[in-house]
Amino acid sequence: MKRSAARVLPRWPRANRPEAISQRQNSLKALPHWDATQHHVLTWPVPAEVLANFQECLTGHMVLPVGVVGPLPLSLGHYVLDATGAVREEGRADEHVFVPLAHTEGGLSASVQRGISAATLAGGVRTHVLADRMTRDSCFVFHTTAEALTLARWVAKQASAMAVWLRDAANPLRIPATGSQESGGKNLVSTHAVLREVETHVVGPMCHVLYRFTTGDACGPNMMTRNAYALNQEFVLARFPRDTGVTPLHVFLETNMGGDKKPSHAFFQFPGHGKVVLAEATLPGDVLRRVLRVSAEEVLALEHTGLHGAHASGMQSFAFTPASAIAAIFAATGQDLGMVGTSSMAQATATRVGDGIHLAIRFSGLEVGTVGGGTSLPHARSYLQLMDCLGPGKVYRFAQIIVATALCLELSAAASMAATGSQNFLQAHFARGGMR
Amino acid sequence: MKRSAARVLPRWPRANRPEAISQRQNSLKALPHWDATQHHVLTWPVPAEVLANFQECLTGHMVLPVGVVGPLPLSLGHYVLDATGAVREEGRADEHVFVPLAHTEGGLSASVQRGISAATLAGGVRTHVLADRMTRDSCFVFHTTAEALTLARWVAKQASAMAVWLRDAANPLRIPATGSQESGGKNLVSTHAVLREVETHVVGPMCHVLYRFTTGDACGPNMMTRNAYALNQEFVLARFPRDTGVTPLHVFLETNMGGDKKPSHAFFQFPGHGKVVLAEATLPGDVLRRVLRVSAEEVLALEHTGLHGAHASGMQSFAFTPASAIAAIFAATGQDLGMVGTSSMAQATATRVGDGIHLAIRFSGLEVGTVGGGTSLPHARSYLQLMDCLGPGKVYRFAQIIVATALCLELSAAASMAATGSQNFLQAHFARGGMR
Amino acid sequence: MKRSAARVLPRWPRANRPEAISQRQNSLKALPHWDATQHHVLTWPVPAEVLANFQECLTGHMVLPVGVVGPLPLSLGHYVLDATGAVREEGRADEHVFVPLAHTEGGLSASVQRGISAATLAGGVRTHVLADRMTRDSCFVFHTTAEALTLARWVAKQASAMAVWLRDAANPLRIPATGSQESGGKNLVSTHAVLREVETHVVGPMCHVLYRFTTGDACGPNMMTRNAYALNQEFVLARFPRDTGVTPLHVFLETNMGGDKKPSHAFFQFPGHGKVVLAEATLPGDVLRRVLRVSAEEVLALEHTGLHGAHASGMQSFAFTPASAIAAIFAATGQDLGMVGTSSMAQATATRVGDGIHLAIRFSGLEVGTVGGGTSLPHARSYLQLMDCLGPGKVYRFAQIIVATALCLELSAAASMAATGSQNFLQAHFARGGMR
Amino acid sequence: MKRSAARVLPRWPRANRPEAISQRQNSLKALPHWDATQHHVLTWPVPAEVLANFQECLTGHMVLPVGVVGPLPLSLGHYVLDATGAVREEGRADEHVFVPLAHTEGGLSASVQRGISAATLAGGVRTHVLADRMTRDSCFVFHTTAEALTLARWVAKQASAMAVWLRDAANPLRIPATGSQESGGKNLVSTHAVLREVETHVVGPMCHVLYRFTTGDACGPNMMTRNAYALNQEFVLARFPRDTGVTPLHVFLETNMGGDKKPSHAFFQFPGHGKVVLAEATLPGDVLRRVLRVSAEEVLALEHTGLHGAHASGMQSFAFTPASAIAAIFAATGQDLGMVGTSSMAQATATRVGDGIHLAIRFSGLEVGTVGGGTSLPHARSYLQLMDCLGPGKVYRFAQIIVATALCLELSAAASMAATGSQNFLQAHFARGGMR
Repeated sequence: MKRSAARVLPRWPRANRPEAISQRQNSLKALPHWDATQHHVLTWPVPAEVLANFQECLTGHMVLPVGVVGPLPLSLGHYVLDATGAVREEGRADEHVFVPLAHTEGGLSASVQRGISAATLAGGVRTHVLADRMTRDSCFVFHTTAEALTLARWVAKQASAMAVWLRDAANPLRIPATGSQESGGKNLVSTHAVLREVETHVVGPMCHVLYRFTTGDACGPNMMTRNAYALNQEFVLARFPRDTGVTPLHVFLETNMGGDKKPSHAFFQFPGHGKVVLAEATLPGDVLRRVLRVSAEEVLALEHTGLHGAHASGMQSFAFTPASAIAAIFAATGQDLGMVGTSSMAQATATRVGDGIHLAIRFSGLEVGTVGGGTSLPHARSYLQLMDCLGPGKVYRFAQIIVATALCLELSAAASMAATGSQNFLQAHFARGGMR
Repeated sequence: MKRSAARVLPRWPRANRPEAISQRQNSLKALPHWDATQHHVLTWPVPAEVLANFQECLTGHMVLPVGVVGPLPLSLGHYVLDATGAVREEGRADEHVFVPLAHTEGGLSASVQRGISAATLAGGVRTHVLADRMTRDSCFVFHTTAEALTLARWVAKQASAMAVWLRDAANPLRIPATGSQESGGKNLVSTHAVLREVETHVVGPMCHVLYRFTTGDACGPNMMTRNAYALNQEFVLARFPRDTGVTPLHVFLETNMGGDKKPSHAFFQFPGHGKVVLAEATLPGDVLRRVLRVSAEEVLALEHTGLHGAHASGMQSFAFTPASAIAAIFAATGQDLGMVGTSSMAQATATRVGDGIHLAIRFSGLEVGTVGGGTSLPHARSYLQLMDCLGPGKVYRFAQIIVATALCLELSAAASMAATGSQNFLQAHFARGGMR
Repeated sequence: MKRSAARVLPRWPRANRPEAISQRQNSLKALPHWDATQHHVLTWPVPAEVLANFQECLTGHMVLPVGVVGPLPLSLGHYVLDATGAVREEGRADEHVFVPLAHTEGGLSASVQRGISAATLAGGVRTHVLADRMTRDSCFVFHTTAEALTLARWVAKQASAMAVWLRDAANPLRIPATGSQESGGKNLVSTHAVLREVETHVVGPMCHVLYRFTTGDACGPNMMTRNAYALNQEFVLARFPRDTGVTPLHVFLETNMGGDKKPSHAFFQFPGHGKVVLAEATLPGDVLRRVLRVSAEEVLALEHTGLHGAHASGMQSFAFTPASAIAAIFAATGQDLGMVGTSSMAQATATRVGDGIHLAIRFSGLEVGTVGGGTSLPHARSYLQLMDCLGPGKVYRFAQIIVATALCLELSAAASMAATGSQNFLQAHFARGGMR
Repeated sequence: MKRSAARVLPRWPRANRPEAISQRQNSLKALPHWDATQHHVLTWPVPAEVLANFQECLTGHMVLPVGVVGPLPLSLGHYVLDATGAVREEGRADEHVFVPLAHTEGGLSASVQRGISAATLAGGVRTHVLADRMTRDSCFVFHTTAEALTLARWVAKQASAMAVWLRDAANPLRIPATGSQESGGKNLVSTHAVLREVETHVVGPMCHVLYRFTTGDACGPNMMTRNAYALNQEFVLARFPRDTGVTPLHVFLETNMGGDKKPSHAFFQFPGHGKVVLAEATLPGDVLRRVLRVSAEEVLALEHTGLHGAHASGMQSFAFTPASAIAAIFAATGQDLGMVGTSSMAQATATRVGDGIHLAIRFSGLEVGTVGGGTSLPHARSYLQLMDCLGPGKVYRFAQIIVATALCLELSAAASMAATGSQNFLQAHFARGGMR
């Protein structure tokens, strides 16, 4: 490709000033293969100045259909984060909730609704939150392993000092200043991302420093990034070389041991990435038969076969279709869709109880928030409010509703697949989504 | 939870008839915690009767902001699927494309745009399509391994007969009938999902039958499901017991070796899941320095460190942030958001070329379509048309544009992260997205 | 460490001439912390000149205790490798075999023997061989992905020519010469390693070339290495640059996609690494109760729990303790102990049959031989002969006996673990091995 | 197979009484296909009554050749286990060590010796021990997730009480009794396996209890098993149902989250399985060139290519051939050969330093002992003593010598493979091992 090719093309501003938005829209309207019938995407069902807060290069909008399913019967725990960073259950209440699903997969909403019907007759879904952490993996690269271990040992002694430093009201990085864009003069450090543990992992001449945070009701990657950056630059680099005489060759803010948007085994077990949440339901044999047209034996045989199939093919997450439920709720509530993959990593189990089954699912890395990011979108706010999950203090409630919904989909999808020859599964796809 | 609790709650219809939609909306409007300020999500910027085609329980809509980035300079291959199911390159052309991104991650669109700027100065991005397959893993469970092997050997001899049977115009399952919902009287078998290979995997008394299809310009899970169901019920079960005297205890349509919506190693190498697509660019040292403010050494050191970090934490996919790009394009173009996780599995490389670097990324399972499913949404159609990717014959073009966009994001994100102390990365988040 | 430190130390010859062996032995005898009571390891129960054929730096010997278990009742398949490289079953016979186990794990031989007792009452163990391949992964590194793809496409067209070239009697690399150490004048190419398929995998600017061989009755890594080297240097490098004008920057003989001595998902499914072998047995409820003191329910519950435990912890291989059996037979028969890890990768299943269970195990990469390498050790030859597995034409028989033995250990160990509270498991360790 | 077939076969005693050993030997001597030339394996270079302590069914012995390589120049740390279970470095000393290798792989000892030569000129190998833990994963299965969580919360409060109970001198399970085989009357609990942490992992209705021990100078699986059994039966089952009213349906002693003899991601990072040990060396360019005939660029390019190859094929461990070194030392020193796979899981790195390279390797699960098990074999004792690693207080020294040896092999093998076209690698195999 000739390097000069781009010269005659329109300069493309990143800004979201009205004139920049118009400039981009006009350029697109002038494209020969894009006629007026397409320009409806350039209108504003939500004011452009509102949408302009969410990303650069704003040019149009997207509309997705939303189905609402429910009422989903739940036994929800009331959880608080204690001073040590542990999630503690302080009570439990029964509720019914309506859940918004934004997607275009024919059969999906009907399947969730069918699972809700079965769960309702079975006494509802019970949910649990076990843990809450987000990890940033910064890496310091040295000449030798011995130097990397010097940092590892130094960090082991500084972990509590790091946490204190971050939340210290006198930390100059916490003092907002006027007119400055620089970190020194602005509120660089976030008080919402609280450092809970610092671990290290040395491989070769590289010392990974795993900062583990809680991020309140936000999903929190940005606040965590700022605090990790502050720790690297203003705490470690300011003190470690002075204390030890050793200086790193490179400092990288994130180098993959933090599990950011790519699934990893390291976060499939404790401490997880985001919220560790479980849901369960016990289905009597008659509910399986009447509502789901399946026997306990069939579901158990499918679980066993599917678990071995997952193992044989190197599938880390074991469940039927958790990503479908996660994606649909994420899209309706302004969560980061780039986290659908990591947030969907799950482990579902089926075991016999009497003539029925116990079905459960564990999510080890549900990355969700009820404040910040896309949750401020007008539509997202409304859907969060529909579930009474908008704003501070709601994130554990929200996480539980998500996994309960996912469990209802698992139940329905597994039953369809398990019934003789998977006929029901095919019919669900065929009648609603399969023909398109 | 008391089983009677749900009785007083509204009955929740799945149907999308106007009265059912109204009934659901009215029920939600009556909820005590949901007031009129939230009801904007129940209006119809796109007619309800249009949205009603995409999912059950339709009740409202979601609006997402869309940024358009570009012009992205590409060397695009022209690919055709040959008679054997191989993807063959038949030519190559230079183009510039504008790419729509639906998301709410501050800094993301700007970062892609920055990567495009660098790629433009570097002569553009070159893309390649290697393969195209979708797999459905049906499983037949027997009493013994010997019986499962009997099926495996039988299937090995029947593979070509299966393919012929599926596409046979006289196949009664291909003849549409009137007024019937049953498979015997309707167009059960899809002519778009073409069976290319059948493999088996026996573990214990279970014989997995891996049907590998091409699905044309559709992503294709539904058409593949229907054809696999037809093969199981009308081909295998109709012939195998008769031929061998062996009958399976269970037949399951999908048991996880098909890689459906959960990442697995089996599809990280050939044959992939969906499209196997690669993108590459060669960045001279001066472009790295001027546009990305980074040196080749820094990028190479980050790649090395991050690759070891990925390995240490059991991260299957290695790249910086492919899921962000995949999710944003998927959301704008009506792709299945439940496939963001599997479609984002990638492997990125950086190697030195002269004083600069060669950067490349491989996606082994990009599950996309330009017809069917959510691509028929009015907004999705417009954004696909913006890229000249709407309709039949466009899916390999679309796949290439996606991976080229992902490469631009990789380039920009890696450069930000690699620059001294990852300061640029922080500033990108801080200035645009970090403060919210 | 001072660089000069090593100067005063003995020069250490690699050779196995008698005087070199003596020189090494004398040096060790002079060590201050090693007295005459240790020197028994420097004697020769097998002549030094015999042992000198197996490794350099020969200095002493090691003695391991060998237990023999049996008679193990088997239904063994008779397998041949056909012209296409497929393993074909040509018959089946019942036999009883005695199996040598070299190890020092108290309780292990008794546990295998207990499994044999149960299997005997249950009608024996049935075994199957599915496939046979060894892979060498050479990698050609280029400047760009486009160049790497050029090689991939060229190789796709040359695969059959490569196989013909290797086995061509006129290939000059096959002609032995006198007095030369150079490849040109010696029998570089092995006729035993037959090239069956050549696949490529392009990632970044790297084109992996996966040469898949069968290696006859030898395990075969060396003969495969020689043939892959010949293909790289004399076929690819001699023709590809001439045909295409493209020259690689680097050529590496093996770069990890070949699965050499490190477990990988790529070889856990077909085509495997070495032999793909399965064993199965059906245990009636009364045999479980009387011999193994366990119920079908307990074994099935353990399998289910253990499979979820394996999944939760990222354990690729699922079985109870296959490595113990593999290592013990490998050590007795001169197999490569460095392949214990890869050869032990297995997947075991338990399913209900009547009031009992079907137990099966699949090994996807059993790397064994009955000729070559350590199998020529005098003791190894005797133990192979004990099983009638010595020499050509015996490798599939040997592979089946190994997996049948492993299944008996699985059966016994699983039963011990599954019985109430795992009391039997503890007692087995306690009585025999636990107290030491 | 007819069930009666085994009836006419010899009854096979497990015992190691002289008459039982003779009975087995006589039975084998009577086999038609096994003549007198094979009977040398039934003689006793080590007295039968000594070998009889190591396994049941003792019938013969195995002889392996042992090469000794060295002198290997080391900077060894002096490590102690502190009261909290952390491994603490208390000093460091330079030494030279001779290392015994029992194997039959032509070229392997020469390759290690070549690596030692290079390391010697480069100033030697530096080693580090980071951690020490062995984990037993018991699992308690319930009806519901809520019950499983009840146990998880109960265990969280009991962890320190469990540790105290185990080491309490008044614990009745620690009092030896005469003439009894029952746990109540014998020394069931081991004082060497010290409980350090107890963690839980709940998935579905299953609560895994991860007991993490240190095991002193023994490898320790048996002592850990006994203590975990005692905790399950006498602590948890004696107290938990009484405290909570909840009783498990099943208790299993080990259910795969303990990493026992099967590699798992859970133990690839901290806390490891056995010893976490690192080795490093810095090789100047001239040493690479003169001794290893390779350039720094070639080694770095190979590491990069091989790391991507490992990633692409789902290979968890990344290094060249660590299992070869591990297996050879394990076989010479009476380690458990069934642990070769898990103990070989490693991560090697190469980075540029000046005109040379820094090469390092990390083993996350080296399962070794200097007392107990096979280390009591007469030959094993002599080889451990050769390295001054026999008996109590030596296990960290032994672990370091192993990883230093593995690093020398990595260095030599990587250099052979990296040199142009991997010619050296082929020649090493060809000249010494390849022709057999």
